[in-house]
Amino acid sequence: MSTRVVTPEFGTLDATDVGLSGLARGVIGSEILRIAAEIRALKARGVEVCNLTVGDFDPAHFPIPTELLEGTKRALADGHTNYPPSDGVLPLREALVRHYEQELGLRYPLDAVLVAGGARPLLYATYRALLDPGDVAVYPVPSWNNNHYAYLAGATPLPLPVQASTNFFPTAASLQPHLATARTVLLNSPLNPTGTVIDPGELGRIAALIVEENRRRAQVGARPVFLIFDQVYWSLTFGDAAHATPVSLVPEVAPYTILLDAISKSLCATGMRVGWGFMPPALRRRMADILGHVGAWAPKAEQMATAALLGRPDAVRAFQVPMKARVRERLDALFDGFMAMKRDGAPVDAIAPQGAIYLSVRFDLVGATVGERRPRSNEEIRQLLLEGAGLAVVPFQAFGSTEDTGWFRLSVGAVSLEEIAAMMPRLRVLLATASRAGDGRVG
Amino acid sequence: MSTRVVTPEFGTLDATDVGLSGLARGVIGSEILRIAAEIRALKARGVEVCNLTVGDFDPAHFPIPTELLEGTKRALADGHTNYPPSDGVLPLREALVRHYEQELGLRYPLDAVLVAGGARPLLYATYRALLDPGDVAVYPVPSWNNNHYAYLAGATPLPLPVQASTNFFPTAASLQPHLATARTVLLNSPLNPTGTVIDPGELGRIAALIVEENRRRAQVGARPVFLIFDQVYWSLTFGDAAHATPVSLVPEVAPYTILLDAISKSLCATGMRVGWGFMPPALRRRMADILGHVGAWAPKAEQMATAALLGRPDAVRAFQVPMKARVRERLDALFDGFMAMKRDGAPVDAIAPQGAIYLSVRFDLVGATVGERRPRSNEEIRQLLLEGAGLAVVPFQAFGSTEDTGWFRLSVGAVSLEEIAAMMPRLRVLLATASRAGDGRVG
Repeated sequence: MSTRVVTPEFGTLDATDVGLSGLARGVIGSEILRIAAEIRALKARGVEVCNLTVGDFDPAHFPIPTELLEGTKRALADGHTNYPPSDGVLPLREALVRHYEQELGLRYPLDAVLVAGGARPLLYATYRALLDPGDVAVYPVPSWNNNHYAYLAGATPLPLPVQASTNFFPTAASLQPHLATARTVLLNSPLNPTGTVIDPGELGRIAALIVEENRRRAQVGARPVFLIFDQVYWSLTFGDAAHATPVSLVPEVAPYTILLDAISKSLCATGMRVGWGFMPPALRRRMADILGHVGAWAPKAEQMATAALLGRPDAVRAFQVPMKARVRERLDALFDGFMAMKRDGAPVDAIAPQGAIYLSVRFDLVGATVGERRPRSNEEIRQLLLEGAGLAVVPFQAFGSTEDTGWFRLSVGAVSLEEIAAMMPRLRVLLATASRAGDGRVG
Repeated sequence: MSTRVVTPEFGTLDATDVGLSGLARGVIGSEILRIAAEIRALKARGVEVCNLTVGDFDPAHFPIPTELLEGTKRALADGHTNYPPSDGVLPLREALVRHYEQELGLRYPLDAVLVAGGARPLLYATYRALLDPGDVAVYPVPSWNNNHYAYLAGATPLPLPVQASTNFFPTAASLQPHLATARTVLLNSPLNPTGTVIDPGELGRIAALIVEENRRRAQVGARPVFLIFDQVYWSLTFGDAAHATPVSLVPEVAPYTILLDAISKSLCATGMRVGWGFMPPALRRRMADILGHVGAWAPKAEQMATAALLGRPDAVRAFQVPMKARVRERLDALFDGFMAMKRDGAPVDAIAPQGAIYLSVRFDLVGATVGERRPRSNEEIRQLLLEGAGLAVVPFQAFGSTEDTGWFRLSVGAVSLEEIAAMMPRLRVLLATASRAGDGRVG
């Protein structure tokens, strides 16, 4: 080409940054991605790392359903390469209505379902469509990204710290004092990052509180509070844990409830970008307009293939049963290993697997001495585990928690049983060196 | 399933709507989609419609490149089904850097390129990252969706009406009086909706003005003005029209310039959701954080396939040469037909094809009498053409224009030559009935 090549010069990052919007200068990127970069650097130096940081699937261990693969290839070959309707292709919206009726016992009208490029854009649009600047967004911490969504909506965040004692969920009693000021309450179950599942009785009481609060508001003409229920992991529950939706427990909460979902986790298809929400049609219409302009649309061929697969409940189940078993065996290997260490006096604890692809694990090392280190925070524990045992985990701080309680998220979608087995002895050796001034061994 | 089926009740749309955010209640959806619904209704009644409304491709006439189809199928089969990095897979970012150097003579660093799910999310994120509420966003009208993006950013819109006399672009002289207050200036060339291409000399003068303005601002410590240059149709220029980028014309404008692009139009792949932008790295970092949370990511397999195809410039050209010819023959068929009618005295005019998939056509019918109708606005002309000649077009009002000048966008990506040929006689008959009080025939 005859054009002379121009190499743009940009000057310093800082000089440019001050010219950006306040929103841009205040945004905080994903903390997990920062940790991921650190792990890549360690691995590049040849260090063996059992990477439990990323909330994703390794396709080598967790491939997508064959029907989804073949369906997407076929849809592409059939010419589904042009614009889908910005709110989702009709066959997918129809399939989703049937899917929720068959699997969750909820018969939503077609104009209640909105498709987008993953659950993430729907969560973003929900915050934007419900919260005016300064409005109060209530969410438990730890929980995934609500701090960022509240920020992007200009809302006033009201994070409710939750503890292991309530299975990392708020209770109706703990929520009640904050309900009068809330515009939104977010719940996510099974919960990222803890892997815990909310008790249906407690969820029903919370839903009833929302209905009651909105009855009161309606009498004085005040705007209602909405319940954002992120159930993207709902197909992944284990043992006694049972998933329930607020709408099936308390039908009267439907006009104030947004259910969010996607194929990302249920079908191991995080990179295919298909998500959806069920919500009141008036809200759906506005969110569709917002997302239409934002352009966070699901690709068309993937939508067609998802519609075809969801239309075959047997195929979905045939995929999910062994997939769940593979998730479960990884969670169990970790949990059993930590419990064995605990029995031997190591300063570690964990919550038995309930749902999602996560395990909540506590490394009780703040203030302990481990070799030459004396970690004072979750962040320092994280570094110790990574460098001392090749174990990469994410502290609850990455999910909005502020207290250094020693709790971490361990994610199993991108790890093999062999990697877990190889890591455990390294961790055992490291934790055996832990001691606490005054009482010798920790734990 | 034993669960009892719950059918949610939602109440009225209006009652819910008042509970939403101000942003949601004020958002205006796509005007084009509203027109599309009307056309579907007409077609369902058996009316033959030559649909020139949608800025998309019909895959039957404009399939994607074979390499992109096979590459996406292969990437899916290879397991590219998990999360891509939220800012784009490395092979695609590297391919884009080489692509811009080879094809546009611009050697950008790797940390200047950001991938997202189409050009739309990048445009949205650019507005959000640059404009504080109340900041002034300058853009010509007609132009695509800038009114909506300014609204979503809370910016003060400063639409500059442009006319056929300047090829529907602002000039340096017409921009200059507004530059002192502007935070962003958007230009799109080839322009949606007009199909016109900006003159490189004029573009260079505008870029030089931006540089000069920012020199002045730097001296007083004021934040710079940014040039958003949407070049998503750059591979589609015809005849003498030549595409140029502001950065190659005036390298000093690079620190203030965002180039936006996608495979949507260049590879007929609107439904595959892969777009990108080149911009100052400091801005890229912030926009990546915003879009990371918004979740408007490009699907991974489509990214891998795009990288592979762009790495083969010969294959891209082998696709684009016949594809452009097919666009051109449709634009020419329309243009030649309208010119023939004009020569015969019909009240119609058009601008010869320059770029994109659009033709600017003027139906000079405001105040004329056509059969029993006397249209007083572009909207009434649109209805007349649709119902009287089965010709579906979009008035410039859908692109932010406010004047009833009789100008319309005609889009050719989803139409056959046969449909155009069948429509022309219907239109000729309709326009032959047009008359204007006082002077008999119009035109």
